[in-house]
Amino acid sequence: MEIAFKASPLKMKAPIVNFVNRIKKLGKDDPRRIVHSFKVALAITLVSMVYYLRPLYKGMGEAGIWAILTVVVVFEYTAGATLCKGMNRGLATLLAGALGLGAEYLASLFGPKVEPIVLGCFVFLLVAAATFSRFIPHIKRRYDYGVLIFILTFSLVAVSGYRVDKIIELAHQRLSTIILGGATCIIISICVCPVWAGEDLHNLIVSNLEKLASFLDGFGGEIFDLPLDGDSADISNEQDKSSLAAYKSVLNSKATEESLANFAWWEPGHGKFGFSHPWKQYLKIGVVTRQCAYHIEALNGYLDPKFQGSSEFRKIVQEPCMKMSSEAGKALKELAVSIKSFSYPCNFAMHIQSCTTAVNEVNTTLQASMVGEWEVLEIIPIITVISILIDIIKCVETIFLAIEELSEQAHFKKSLNENEKPQLLHGDERQDKGFVTVIIHNMASASPAMKDSRG
Amino acid sequence: MEIAFKASPLKMKAPIVNFVNRIKKLGKDDPRRIVHSFKVALAITLVSMVYYLRPLYKGMGEAGIWAILTVVVVFEYTAGATLCKGMNRGLATLLAGALGLGAEYLASLFGPKVEPIVLGCFVFLLVAAATFSRFIPHIKRRYDYGVLIFILTFSLVAVSGYRVDKIIELAHQRLSTIILGGATCIIISICVCPVWAGEDLHNLIVSNLEKLASFLDGFGGEIFDLPLDGDSADISNEQDKSSLAAYKSVLNSKATEESLANFAWWEPGHGKFGFSHPWKQYLKIGVVTRQCAYHIEALNGYLDPKFQGSSEFRKIVQEPCMKMSSEAGKALKELAVSIKSFSYPCNFAMHIQSCTTAVNEVNTTLQASMVGEWEVLEIIPIITVISILIDIIKCVETIFLAIEELSEQAHFKKSLNENEKPQLLHGDERQDKGFVTVIIHNMASASPAMKDSRG
Repeated sequence: MEIAFKASPLKMKAPIVNFVNRIKKLGKDDPRRIVHSFKVALAITLVSMVYYLRPLYKGMGEAGIWAILTVVVVFEYTAGATLCKGMNRGLATLLAGALGLGAEYLASLFGPKVEPIVLGCFVFLLVAAATFSRFIPHIKRRYDYGVLIFILTFSLVAVSGYRVDKIIELAHQRLSTIILGGATCIIISICVCPVWAGEDLHNLIVSNLEKLASFLDGFGGEIFDLPLDGDSADISNEQDKSSLAAYKSVLNSKATEESLANFAWWEPGHGKFGFSHPWKQYLKIGVVTRQCAYHIEALNGYLDPKFQGSSEFRKIVQEPCMKMSSEAGKALKELAVSIKSFSYPCNFAMHIQSCTTAVNEVNTTLQASMVGEWEVLEIIPIITVISILIDIIKCVETIFLAIEELSEQAHFKKSLNENEKPQLLHGDERQDKGFVTVIIHNMASASPAMKDSRG
Repeated sequence: MEIAFKASPLKMKAPIVNFVNRIKKLGKDDPRRIVHSFKVALAITLVSMVYYLRPLYKGMGEAGIWAILTVVVVFEYTAGATLCKGMNRGLATLLAGALGLGAEYLASLFGPKVEPIVLGCFVFLLVAAATFSRFIPHIKRRYDYGVLIFILTFSLVAVSGYRVDKIIELAHQRLSTIILGGATCIIISICVCPVWAGEDLHNLIVSNLEKLASFLDGFGGEIFDLPLDGDSADISNEQDKSSLAAYKSVLNSKATEESLANFAWWEPGHGKFGFSHPWKQYLKIGVVTRQCAYHIEALNGYLDPKFQGSSEFRKIVQEPCMKMSSEAGKALKELAVSIKSFSYPCNFAMHIQSCTTAVNEVNTTLQASMVGEWEVLEIIPIITVISILIDIIKCVETIFLAIEELSEQAHFKKSLNENEKPQLLHGDERQDKGFVTVIIHNMASASPAMKDSRG
């Protein structure tokens, strides 16, 4: 009995402790979540107290309801999303209110018996059209909430059955409460520890590039330092691999990036981001970054110690291969730093030059080894790794081109060693075509073109 | 002047025609969108007419507002989403109403002067806690809207300032209108041409598999039938390629799949889908399908005619390579048909057996040909293609295992030739480990393991 008595609270305790720990982790991972919760609570308390304490209304009337409702529905995590919803709500209420009044007036011309039927038809047709418009991608992206509020307000006003003069008074009262609620949200959202969607997008793009960079940086060491017998793969290796796996989150970042870019569009200038910061270009960088991540995903399969192939052949290509991978990683890291610090990626040319040299070295090595030294089966994995690495270097180059475009649009500062790039590549057609491309073309059959990401 | 006069309406006309065509296409692509628009319009017209025509209320009172509001906010495209929102709204309103009453009663014990402060504290703390709970992934996924309504209702009730007996009357009235609005939505959503999220998820998974299948089916012909000189790539080729590119949408299907699976969870049994249909297993199939799509993305780069490598070497591996690709495509097609028809994929064993044979053929061919015959540089692209194709076959096998699990959970029917699989692979350890894996292990160095998708 005693054991059962002791075990029971323990059993109860474990899931509770577990739950509390998960909640704590949520807060620790992003403390802005806690701040956001208090911001929402502050806004609602403020608005409700205004209406509760106002001596004019005994208790809370219509108006209070709409103010609280507006705050609850409009207040979002990022400032951009709050602005988007607030503006949508305000404008849609105005537009729908006016249209509703018009519909009511028109219907009243038909006389009291036909009026409900005419009104019903108006509501039916306008609601159907507005609902359908929510499927248009552009409207869905930017004005979805506005259309919702339009439908709501139009139906309410059109069917309210009040006389027009009373409606105008009502509309005035309701609009002012909505404006009060919306303004409270927007002011608190922007002034108290704001969470900017644009900044989040910026940081997401940087961290995605860093994740790919750290994979490439570690990949060379991982694939060539593996013990040849698969069984003795040790635990530290497993840990290294799990740190390499961070890139996997990049594969599915599209939805987040797009919603952040949408909200960023609504935000005023803040910090280093101007009002017309080229958020669309971030999406382009996101696309080519994901393209690179797909190739890395293909490469990742070759880390298994069971499939390492001929050790002799590996040795002769090991050095340039590791260099290709780590220099591509460094080039990506440089690009990430460049976005982070709003400066032109000056050292990129150096790293990609090293990549090119490494590709050339592999090229030479392979050209030299045409005699029947190796069995084809033995060299397949390493050849595939080389081939995919070259694809990745081309992706890195495409990412560079997208970031170069961003650096022009967002006026990134160019540092003193800005002239390094032309010096390094002076008199070389590579400058126009992208650094690696020419080398790759020389390796006539060495690997496929990345047409998709260039198109 | 005349030209300007003529040109101007034409200029005006072009964007309008363009816009109308885009709208028409939206409707044609999925006629259910048009039906949905009319369903929403019907629900709102019905609810507002009920309140408008009811002789008891002169004009529309409080109650009508809440009924229309509920319909506008709750009615979603799929039945599952509507149910999710409706149930969330109903339950959250009940719970928050009760808690709000309790808070109001507790606060009133402190006397009229301290009451607003105590109430303010209650609202502040509860709203902060509820807002934070929306960051918990499980709640965000399933009860996000419920928490929103909870915050709204609790604030409204707690700060309403009415006496408790009046609140109960108000609550009764409001709850009944919300139930009326919600029930209207749910009934129309389920009974009039319902759009089931579950069915959409089912179809999405099938069509994703079909897209990958048609890529693999066309890939062999595409890569080996290309003219060797890159410039003469003709237009029909371009068209073929664009039809191959359908697989690209699979890469980014994660978000859609997850939201559909969430909504499907709320749906009652319908058609061939029982109440406890294993929707989660569809997500697992989605994950391994995307894994396969990543490898296909890597393969896609090798379709460029510039990088075809040695034509001699291509000739000797052409036949088994094309077979690998097309049989993998057929195997995937079989899996798609199996899900579509709720039947066990009986012919899968046959196709994957052909894949295995083709892999063996390539194996033999490569073993016979020492590198001495070919320059390593020349054979790189084809070797890489073979290597990636083998990875893809392993992915297909993983997809099969996931679908086999689904077929057990969802009780797929087994047709007459159900015994084909054991006959084909009888007495073979492959049956346990997956068909290709053993072959792959025999090709000791031929390609990497797909640990991630197996894990």
